[in-house]
Amino acid sequence: MESGSTRVIRVFVAGLGAVGRRFVGLMASQETLLAGRYGLRLVLVGAADSSGAAIASEGLDPLRVVAMKEARQGVSGYPGAGRPGMPLRQALAASPAELLIEATPTNLRDAQPGLDCIRAALARGIPVVTASKGPLVLAYRELVALAEQSGVRLAFSGAVAGGLPTVNLGRRDLAGSTILRVEGVFNSTTNYILTSMAEAGASFAEALAEAQRRGIAEADPSLDVDGLDAAAKLVIVANSVLGRPTVLGDVEIEGIRNITLEQVAAARREGRALKLLALAEREGEDYRLSVRPVALEAEHPLARLRPWEMGVRYVTDTMGVIYAAIDEPDPLPTAAAVLRDVIDVCGRR
Amino acid sequence: MESGSTRVIRVFVAGLGAVGRRFVGLMASQETLLAGRYGLRLVLVGAADSSGAAIASEGLDPLRVVAMKEARQGVSGYPGAGRPGMPLRQALAASPAELLIEATPTNLRDAQPGLDCIRAALARGIPVVTASKGPLVLAYRELVALAEQSGVRLAFSGAVAGGLPTVNLGRRDLAGSTILRVEGVFNSTTNYILTSMAEAGASFAEALAEAQRRGIAEADPSLDVDGLDAAAKLVIVANSVLGRPTVLGDVEIEGIRNITLEQVAAARREGRALKLLALAEREGEDYRLSVRPVALEAEHPLARLRPWEMGVRYVTDTMGVIYAAIDEPDPLPTAAAVLRDVIDVCGRR
Repeated sequence: MESGSTRVIRVFVAGLGAVGRRFVGLMASQETLLAGRYGLRLVLVGAADSSGAAIASEGLDPLRVVAMKEARQGVSGYPGAGRPGMPLRQALAASPAELLIEATPTNLRDAQPGLDCIRAALARGIPVVTASKGPLVLAYRELVALAEQSGVRLAFSGAVAGGLPTVNLGRRDLAGSTILRVEGVFNSTTNYILTSMAEAGASFAEALAEAQRRGIAEADPSLDVDGLDAAAKLVIVANSVLGRPTVLGDVEIEGIRNITLEQVAAARREGRALKLLALAEREGEDYRLSVRPVALEAEHPLARLRPWEMGVRYVTDTMGVIYAAIDEPDPLPTAAAVLRDVIDVCGRR
Repeated sequence: MESGSTRVIRVFVAGLGAVGRRFVGLMASQETLLAGRYGLRLVLVGAADSSGAAIASEGLDPLRVVAMKEARQGVSGYPGAGRPGMPLRQALAASPAELLIEATPTNLRDAQPGLDCIRAALARGIPVVTASKGPLVLAYRELVALAEQSGVRLAFSGAVAGGLPTVNLGRRDLAGSTILRVEGVFNSTTNYILTSMAEAGASFAEALAEAQRRGIAEADPSLDVDGLDAAAKLVIVANSVLGRPTVLGDVEIEGIRNITLEQVAAARREGRALKLLALAEREGEDYRLSVRPVALEAEHPLARLRPWEMGVRYVTDTMGVIYAAIDEPDPLPTAAAVLRDVIDVCGRR
């Protein structure tokens, strides 16, 4: 029963991969909580994947969409609502969406189709919550300006280390202070690999194969292994938290591809832990940005991260040093981060 | 030069102790940052301490106020603006304040004068940022209702473990999830004492005396040592983050007064660290609340907190496990937390 104080939000979910489908699942599992605690009712009026889209103004059944995806069916097969082959932007335009969830597979080459989809939504005055990094890395300032012009929100707390509220911490909890240094372990695949090498004595190849077997690493793990994923997240932090207009090329990147078991063991003998560290160091009025393997001393909080953890450390002038970490062994917290942004964008009761 | 886009906020600071005076100092030191980054200009139109108040619609000089306090002068001695002996509520009413900063010394008995001051401000439609815990512990629901009725904000992120954004994390970043467990080391005095006992072999009495010498512990340290300060913070978390109407009596409290060096050493031999742990454990639809010394296993993130650190760990259903800690060796981060709330309440550009 819909109470008079419940606000209905018509949502379009672009991308039904690991994060997108879990977000759709949360729309069902958290339905009672959303209504009771926040006075919100989310209606899935459209969803899109590589097969096309499904559009239904009365709402698709989230559980049905999740079941189809788990059965490896394209959402365009949804009975009575399917639009096989319909391009993403067209599907969004054809739906009565009031909020776009952007969770299409990210790429750092052209960030499509997510980038055009976000542009179209913002231009039409539709707020956007994105877990997808590519659009933010390639076009941060343009998208923020578009959102401002339309007077709508662009939220992306799930884009920098899953459920870890890196951006929220930096922008809101450190407001009024100056950030002197940001240190992050933002990529869980490489953290898993380096931790396995250090603790189980696995070779790089063995650890990577295990990460792929577990579904953490992609079939093509180069974004993770070559430090590009971590660098992409650092670019987003630099733009949104440090207020520094930043592109990927501003980051000195060295991945873990050439790390040997002997290097890891040597660090360990010195009481250190090798981590792929994303780093922003203040230099005058600017920041120097890098991603590279660093042998952290044992007492450094990031040195102790477990395989499925990610963390960030902010050194400030007036707010002391703040550290946060998340243990997230699967993509659900990233989907939950998308949901927290939805609640934030739509307003809480 | 005031640009057209700068918003002027007239602030009244109640309480010029450790936190209040540092907040006033930040009004000066962060002036350029506040204007440039957030489009805000804070004007100190009133300040109050045990001597009375000072009121000036054109604004008191923050640096002068800080200097007076450091010279142990009452603010009612401020030339041309002083109101010796004027009661706090009267001073607030006599000033053109648009925002109240409540930083009077807290007490858990009747929370005065802070509680009446906050009531008066909210009733008059003046938003409040409080670092003072007493009013929130004794009258949380009443104050929240008053704020809602007046349509103004009541912010208190600095009330639970200084600059550590415990409440913000719980309310904002875990929105949409269910919190299953909260573990906190919320009191730095007792953390300092227990860490000294464990690492320097100091007796309880020696460690407490050192904490008092350093100005961390109060002359009457019982609020810290008997677990009341930690319990007060847990009450605020329970009300604001867990949504559980809670009073101090709901918390089972055991402080560290009876902890012996032998107990600390015994824990250490087992690879554990004794910490005064604030705990909320979900039981059905409710939470069981306690503050007591707990021997945490070495791998527990809170076990490793250094003397000046405080931390919180949230276990959730959909957002994984999130941990945050702050290193704050002096009261400045608490004052900075008040400032971040001011920025949040006043809106950012």
